[in-house]
Amino acid sequence: MAGSTIGTLFRVTTYGESHGCAVGVIVDGATPGVALTEAVVQRELDRRKPGQSSVTTPRAEPDVVHITSGVFEGVTTGTPIHMTLHNRDADPSAYLAIKDKFRPGHADFTYLRKYGVRDWRGSGRASGRETAGRVAAGAVAKAMLARRGVTVTAYTLRAAGIQAKAIDLDAIERNPMRTPDMEAAHEMIARIEAAQRAGDSYGGVVECRIRGLEAGLGEPVFDRLDADLAKAILSIGATKGIEFGDGFAAVDMRGSEHNDSMNASGFASNHAGGILGGISTGAEIVFRVAVKPPSSISVPQATVDVEGRETEIKTEGRHDPCICPRIVPVVEAMAAMVLEDHAKRQAALHA
Amino acid sequence: MAGSTIGTLFRVTTYGESHGCAVGVIVDGATPGVALTEAVVQRELDRRKPGQSSVTTPRAEPDVVHITSGVFEGVTTGTPIHMTLHNRDADPSAYLAIKDKFRPGHADFTYLRKYGVRDWRGSGRASGRETAGRVAAGAVAKAMLARRGVTVTAYTLRAAGIQAKAIDLDAIERNPMRTPDMEAAHEMIARIEAAQRAGDSYGGVVECRIRGLEAGLGEPVFDRLDADLAKAILSIGATKGIEFGDGFAAVDMRGSEHNDSMNASGFASNHAGGILGGISTGAEIVFRVAVKPPSSISVPQATVDVEGRETEIKTEGRHDPCICPRIVPVVEAMAAMVLEDHAKRQAALHA
Amino acid sequence: MAGSTIGTLFRVTTYGESHGCAVGVIVDGATPGVALTEAVVQRELDRRKPGQSSVTTPRAEPDVVHITSGVFEGVTTGTPIHMTLHNRDADPSAYLAIKDKFRPGHADFTYLRKYGVRDWRGSGRASGRETAGRVAAGAVAKAMLARRGVTVTAYTLRAAGIQAKAIDLDAIERNPMRTPDMEAAHEMIARIEAAQRAGDSYGGVVECRIRGLEAGLGEPVFDRLDADLAKAILSIGATKGIEFGDGFAAVDMRGSEHNDSMNASGFASNHAGGILGGISTGAEIVFRVAVKPPSSISVPQATVDVEGRETEIKTEGRHDPCICPRIVPVVEAMAAMVLEDHAKRQAALHA
Amino acid sequence: MAGSTIGTLFRVTTYGESHGCAVGVIVDGATPGVALTEAVVQRELDRRKPGQSSVTTPRAEPDVVHITSGVFEGVTTGTPIHMTLHNRDADPSAYLAIKDKFRPGHADFTYLRKYGVRDWRGSGRASGRETAGRVAAGAVAKAMLARRGVTVTAYTLRAAGIQAKAIDLDAIERNPMRTPDMEAAHEMIARIEAAQRAGDSYGGVVECRIRGLEAGLGEPVFDRLDADLAKAILSIGATKGIEFGDGFAAVDMRGSEHNDSMNASGFASNHAGGILGGISTGAEIVFRVAVKPPSSISVPQATVDVEGRETEIKTEGRHDPCICPRIVPVVEAMAAMVLEDHAKRQAALHA
Repeated sequence: MAGSTIGTLFRVTTYGESHGCAVGVIVDGATPGVALTEAVVQRELDRRKPGQSSVTTPRAEPDVVHITSGVFEGVTTGTPIHMTLHNRDADPSAYLAIKDKFRPGHADFTYLRKYGVRDWRGSGRASGRETAGRVAAGAVAKAMLARRGVTVTAYTLRAAGIQAKAIDLDAIERNPMRTPDMEAAHEMIARIEAAQRAGDSYGGVVECRIRGLEAGLGEPVFDRLDADLAKAILSIGATKGIEFGDGFAAVDMRGSEHNDSMNASGFASNHAGGILGGISTGAEIVFRVAVKPPSSISVPQATVDVEGRETEIKTEGRHDPCICPRIVPVVEAMAAMVLEDHAKRQAALHA
Repeated sequence: MAGSTIGTLFRVTTYGESHGCAVGVIVDGATPGVALTEAVVQRELDRRKPGQSSVTTPRAEPDVVHITSGVFEGVTTGTPIHMTLHNRDADPSAYLAIKDKFRPGHADFTYLRKYGVRDWRGSGRASGRETAGRVAAGAVAKAMLARRGVTVTAYTLRAAGIQAKAIDLDAIERNPMRTPDMEAAHEMIARIEAAQRAGDSYGGVVECRIRGLEAGLGEPVFDRLDADLAKAILSIGATKGIEFGDGFAAVDMRGSEHNDSMNASGFASNHAGGILGGISTGAEIVFRVAVKPPSSISVPQATVDVEGRETEIKTEGRHDPCICPRIVPVVEAMAAMVLEDHAKRQAALHA
Repeated sequence: MAGSTIGTLFRVTTYGESHGCAVGVIVDGATPGVALTEAVVQRELDRRKPGQSSVTTPRAEPDVVHITSGVFEGVTTGTPIHMTLHNRDADPSAYLAIKDKFRPGHADFTYLRKYGVRDWRGSGRASGRETAGRVAAGAVAKAMLARRGVTVTAYTLRAAGIQAKAIDLDAIERNPMRTPDMEAAHEMIARIEAAQRAGDSYGGVVECRIRGLEAGLGEPVFDRLDADLAKAILSIGATKGIEFGDGFAAVDMRGSEHNDSMNASGFASNHAGGILGGISTGAEIVFRVAVKPPSSISVPQATVDVEGRETEIKTEGRHDPCICPRIVPVVEAMAAMVLEDHAKRQAALHA
Repeated sequence: MAGSTIGTLFRVTTYGESHGCAVGVIVDGATPGVALTEAVVQRELDRRKPGQSSVTTPRAEPDVVHITSGVFEGVTTGTPIHMTLHNRDADPSAYLAIKDKFRPGHADFTYLRKYGVRDWRGSGRASGRETAGRVAAGAVAKAMLARRGVTVTAYTLRAAGIQAKAIDLDAIERNPMRTPDMEAAHEMIARIEAAQRAGDSYGGVVECRIRGLEAGLGEPVFDRLDADLAKAILSIGATKGIEFGDGFAAVDMRGSEHNDSMNASGFASNHAGGILGGISTGAEIVFRVAVKPPSSISVPQATVDVEGRETEIKTEGRHDPCICPRIVPVVEAMAAMVLEDHAKRQAALHA
């Protein structure tokens, strides 16, 4: 399988480079007869788009989605849904100066080693712009999941060393950090703006909560729900780790502490994070994602060029000083795809 | 796709339950003409088998592998390699007493909710015994990788709250914890034995290092090398998280700290853990896995039965008080499969 | 994907060579809770096994199936069903004399060119013996289909130049040719026995009828029901063509003759063979398969050896003079797998 | 897997309906560094487009292709190639009159039964227009194959009851029937024009020859080269059968007639059609495809409406009286995809 497709039954294939004509996505396998409009998809894309605030890149891509197929008279037809976003007449000339240098922390070096060909305009296929297609597909998955009462909510749990203490889901879309703690938001922003002024960037943690999911989803033994979520989430650029439930904190616990006992109402606790044996328990699914600081910084860095000669690089331009707020909708999108895919697989198992 | 197969070109399918006749595996897509013997596979299986030491279950399964097809005159033929391990005449009667109760932390509840059918003998398909097939397949992958000089080495980095300080790879197979620090091994064992006497268990962290891998492996955008490794590793029971390179420690770092600068000799550091943009850099790949404390403990726990009635359970019997030493070869096996699969995908890309 | 797996949701993977220890199959994705016994599977295998009559090879392989996993207390559990048939202590020494020669019409040459390794014992993986695993998996699929009233019936429509005139499905299992016309059976047998005495062999046509299938199965655009049936059927050795409904006879027809008009009771005719636009219509599905004369004949033939030197070969031994009667259950098995797979896919689409 | 994707390593996914905004295709897995231009793709599309002659529909769709991603500075980058064709402002009002009736021989009925939703504009996703995406993808595959000297040539062997006697490949593009026999072309055209005047249509046979292919391609046991070609070809609308080499004519042959003997120069004959045991022999691959007469005819036909009421239908408008000339490039495209996919799989096997 080539690498631009994910999913078994709800299948998503993206295409497009940052400075090509367009980015887009095909969703194949969507349930027919479900209401879907460009407005619903656009709402998700607007959460991902650049230029939203002081903590995102000021680049302005309008990111308008067009649904060209698979929807007729306001509902899905069951045939492939193609959604495309035209790139504005992007000027790649800014990249001419560094087209022969490898940006530290970027995929320039590995893409060239992999393909033997370099699309030096922006990050080419490795650009975060590719995630627009994912978010569009995720909006379709969310529309499917909503029919069964499932919600997927991600947020910035930590950024620039500041941890959210409160988890007020209503606060998330009310601050540019997309953190569920308004107070923490202010501290995060202050630190990130300071880093940005220094030409630097910050990482963070994104947490995701899935509510309303039935027990029984996930396919032993390799396609466990947590395994498939992990793959989907770590396929997002800038992610460096994932943990479910207590995650890495569980490693120092005893079995008697970590096991979730059961009573007539269900599970008495949720150390497991809503998944046991790779299958959803019916409890809330909780996972956290490690997000590295963006690689594009204007601090000068040592590097080499394509000939292996040592040199220095400064990645000028308008970059995100912390990608957490914009990665939040991408995490939701990837999780939603996996859930919808597994819901279909479970239906198939019992057919 | 049903869930018992992993890989695109190097494809591994396992079968078998803990108390059925046999567990086994088919490896399809192995390179023809590579030397392979049962002894090579057995060596890996012996690292996984129970009864190795005081910190593993004293159950004694001989775990003898039979290669029934796909190998002829000492070499692989390129056709499916089937390997099987007969289960000893296991007596599931020990499970009769708890066949209607859900063991906390186990997959009893979720399997029943998923399938509507319960194989109450041991953990059925959810048993760790299924990983014998994985280890056998991993031995095949390792034989393939060895031809290109790639080694995969995992070890217990932390267990029962004790962290290995030294990383002496030669020490790993010389202590029952499979930790690269002999001193830490003694402390880990002492704590785990104490927990075991109390009917309890402990978790830990397994770290894995991949050396000798060429740059360029991994398929943007969904089948990134780290994403595929994450899926493979988190498909192992008892795992709760994975991180690459600096992992969760990267979240508080600045870009200028985290970016690995380059010089004429290669990368000056390896915060990224050997993968950039989902593609191997040629540097060592490093990842860590969170392993929860085993769920099977003899401490009494609150639970419910299949009718939802509250009750209590004690999982008697001989269980692993810490699964890290036995999960080490499974982590290596899963990683090796992913690497061999991606090596084949890269060859195909340039065909 | 490696080539020994077929199906998306009802997934079948076979292994084994003609003169190895065993042949077998894993069925992953079977619906849980369906009654399944070794006797049911054995019944189908007995239809495929050698030594049934004068028109099949007199070799005697008992072909006893063992279900080692995936069935518990008489029903499927939803986990992988592994079925294996031990090979009798087969003596490959008969093949020593021709181990360096390519048998005309056989896969000796192409396997060596593909793999660079030759398993010269019998036909190795290319042996018809591999189809035992398919028939076992087909028995599982048939058990699933029976729940929804679907039957799959194949028979020899033509052999050795003799066409069945009557289509009496009850006659099929009452004659060794598995033809629905008792009179034609006698003529076929006479001709085939004569060919066999001359050291030669004959081909034929197998027809398959699927009844009781609901409308709506098949996935546009590539995974059409007819396309997937064609792949599954032509993956059987010795097949050289397939046609649906009127098939090749349609090429000289006009649209006004070929179109099946509709009335209040359904379709007025079935030129299409039960599939339109790649989707089942609800009418009977009918297809025919071209089966070549077996390649193993004792008439001397010109050939070359592995060094390219010209030589002569006589394939001594006990071979099938016409493979149609034994291919009938294999055709049914492959068709049943495809139907069960598509039934699951349709359920998933509407989940 | 949803049904709009084909291929394992060279993966093709199409989208689009006849009267939507656009049809298009993503090719994922193309070898990087191969020269590719819109002109090369357009040349193939022009062979498929309507309005070419008196024997094709006079509808005029310009079918201009845009490559929006995956090609940079004139060569493929190894990332997904997205190609799109905007639909002209198609007026679906012509279909209003029959939007509630099922056209005999069409997929109207089965699509409604499958999806529960009907896109009544033209044939929606079932339209032959979807094949434009296939032809574009096939052009990419052909560019890849050309590097290894492989050519794929299809032509009309028979149409309207007239058989080509000469096989002059140079004649194919010199007559509107795309038949390799200029004389036969005239007869075919005369008959088809007569049928068209009567509001009727004709079927035919398309033959395909593949030259220059190495021995060794095809994956036992399910993904045989012939099985995968059969699936790919029968996924084209209007096809009803396929046969390889002697095909259905082999059924009356004896083994001694059908086996291709070998000598120092290779195979002495090619009854097998270039494939043995599912693997290419290195000889020319030959297969034939049964093409039914187009279903859209203006002769009045009995049918029912969506409520099951009996009625009559005349499919007015401009339709193809024989689809063979336009299906020729689609057959080539599908075959080319399969060959390129298998070439990559063979490279992966030996990696």
